[in-house]
Amino acid sequence: MLVIENMEEVKTYEVDRLKEFTTRVFKHFGVPDEDAELASEVLSTADVRGIDSHGVARLHAYFDLLDIGAINPKANIHVIREMPATATVDGDNGLGLVVGPKANVIAMEKADTVGSAWVTVCNSNHYGIAGYYTLKALAKDMIGWSMTNSASLVAPLWGAERMLGTNAISVSFPGKHEPPIVIDMATSAVAYGKIEMARRRQEKIPHGWAVNHRGESTTDPTEMIEGGAMLPLGSDREMGGHKGYALAAMVDILSCVLSGANWGPFAPPFALRQEVPERSVGKGIGHIFGAMKIEAFIDTEEFKSQIDDWITEFRNTKPAKGTKGPLIPGDPERLAEEERGSKGIPLIRAVRDELMDVSKRTGVPFD
Amino acid sequence: MLVIENMEEVKTYEVDRLKEFTTRVFKHFGVPDEDAELASEVLSTADVRGIDSHGVARLHAYFDLLDIGAINPKANIHVIREMPATATVDGDNGLGLVVGPKANVIAMEKADTVGSAWVTVCNSNHYGIAGYYTLKALAKDMIGWSMTNSASLVAPLWGAERMLGTNAISVSFPGKHEPPIVIDMATSAVAYGKIEMARRRQEKIPHGWAVNHRGESTTDPTEMIEGGAMLPLGSDREMGGHKGYALAAMVDILSCVLSGANWGPFAPPFALRQEVPERSVGKGIGHIFGAMKIEAFIDTEEFKSQIDDWITEFRNTKPAKGTKGPLIPGDPERLAEEERGSKGIPLIRAVRDELMDVSKRTGVPFD
Repeated sequence: MLVIENMEEVKTYEVDRLKEFTTRVFKHFGVPDEDAELASEVLSTADVRGIDSHGVARLHAYFDLLDIGAINPKANIHVIREMPATATVDGDNGLGLVVGPKANVIAMEKADTVGSAWVTVCNSNHYGIAGYYTLKALAKDMIGWSMTNSASLVAPLWGAERMLGTNAISVSFPGKHEPPIVIDMATSAVAYGKIEMARRRQEKIPHGWAVNHRGESTTDPTEMIEGGAMLPLGSDREMGGHKGYALAAMVDILSCVLSGANWGPFAPPFALRQEVPERSVGKGIGHIFGAMKIEAFIDTEEFKSQIDDWITEFRNTKPAKGTKGPLIPGDPERLAEEERGSKGIPLIRAVRDELMDVSKRTGVPFD
Repeated sequence: MLVIENMEEVKTYEVDRLKEFTTRVFKHFGVPDEDAELASEVLSTADVRGIDSHGVARLHAYFDLLDIGAINPKANIHVIREMPATATVDGDNGLGLVVGPKANVIAMEKADTVGSAWVTVCNSNHYGIAGYYTLKALAKDMIGWSMTNSASLVAPLWGAERMLGTNAISVSFPGKHEPPIVIDMATSAVAYGKIEMARRRQEKIPHGWAVNHRGESTTDPTEMIEGGAMLPLGSDREMGGHKGYALAAMVDILSCVLSGANWGPFAPPFALRQEVPERSVGKGIGHIFGAMKIEAFIDTEEFKSQIDDWITEFRNTKPAKGTKGPLIPGDPERLAEEERGSKGIPLIRAVRDELMDVSKRTGVPFD
């Protein structure tokens, strides 16, 4: 994961230009046109919303896996079991960026018919930002759910080993005149990128983010990166670390045990440099998508008006001293979207170098 | 909320004796026999599982509300809107301990037919422990979900006011030979009972649990209790307080905005001493119940075997130094259940005094 720093030379790129590049890279490996466009859309949504760690900064990792044949470019994504309000999808080891959107559509179609649905997915790969999927549900006047596991980095409370991914949860709610409430969060205390960044800057990290290989709280980012683990949301027992651990476990079980994917420490690596787990307990990584048709529960317009009222009340909360008051979940990403929509996507040199490498090795022009 | 202390004289009671007493108290107010038994079962499940704050320790609060006619003892609980995988239930201002179990049954029946379902509930009152409902789903080889709002105590990150309840989430997963994984957690950093207890003992609380009326972190429990607020899971920005706030918001919206109940700071009070909110934005408090039929996604036996494997792996995690290693969510409650099943329920004098008062005022014998 990469974070923008002032000290690094930044260049900005138009979204469409990055999208075209990534589409062509995926196509280079035989990904069908429509799928390549879908995958690029997911990646660029991350870039546009300011989640730099999950956008084109990851293209090289997808490239590597496609290049060695570890991801199936022409996946036959199919339902292996279903009922009117459920499905289990086998992603045929395809790009998560293609498997995810297709499974999400199934969840929304089923919810449209019976009111709500869950679709769990095995045999997939990294699916981008969890929020992409729930934004899609908003456009259909649905509440969307999206969760995924990922390669293990996080220790359970009182553990000294990496047993869980940063296991994201996204849920979104549409407003009427107000922008939507978009929850999109990892279940770890902090993003891994912040720990990497601290190491690069030779800074300490606060207690509560990570433990060393003995499971002791550490302020040295290197101790986490070299054999330690991140901590779940809540960090320690006193502050509720058992709750963050429970949420990560919930995501893991719904995404993987329920679908037949590799759960917990057995999630396959996302990047070539990551360790391969000692055993396999299922197929690929797993996701789960949910959709709830608002009209099935309450008048959609009434719901949206109440959401507007909710947002107004929370914005008008008396601010804590020294702050501007509470944000609404999704505010930072929406503000990034407004800025980047007009100014373009800033890429630091490290990312540009990676894209240039992809360009050189695929023959797809960049820059 | 009350916590057992050595310094308080404790007496133990057989579960069935407490259950009979509470059933008779509910019946005294005209609650139908079956409903009274259901309500007692929910309360006693909390006592048996060691969640003392949500068991008979709360009977006096229910008594008060029934006594002044604030809760409808003969509620006509009914579905006001539905699709095959959804329903919205109006609790007719009944006991949450009766409304909740009935709405939960609807969710499970629908999930049995179409694979999964969500049932949202308005016009209800406090429903006991969230975990009661998901334990019921386990018995049907389903994954259960249960969430509820409650009277506001928690500030959103960067807020200086109580805007959200401790908004609980429970999700449970059945094992094969292993006991189930039972997640049952508030979305606040800590239980309110711990802050009350610190005040009673004249002890400080750690930073990260609460803020004073200016929204500043405080270590003085009185500053929180008298005009301050609790903090969401994650506590501050650096440790992920925006995530706990987002989860509490999610519970609030799914339980209340989606059902037509009072959301956020407008949740009606549970106890007579609590303040009445300045406006009403819906009916009563709200809950939401979900059910996912495991067989709809994967072979149930395969799922349960994998859960056993999951539990074994997590129990065998290398322990953090100075700990016995990770617990499985639900372990503490299960251990309490084993002990209390044989030894009975310990009640401190304050709770016994309250029950004696209920006894005196209803004529139902106790002790």
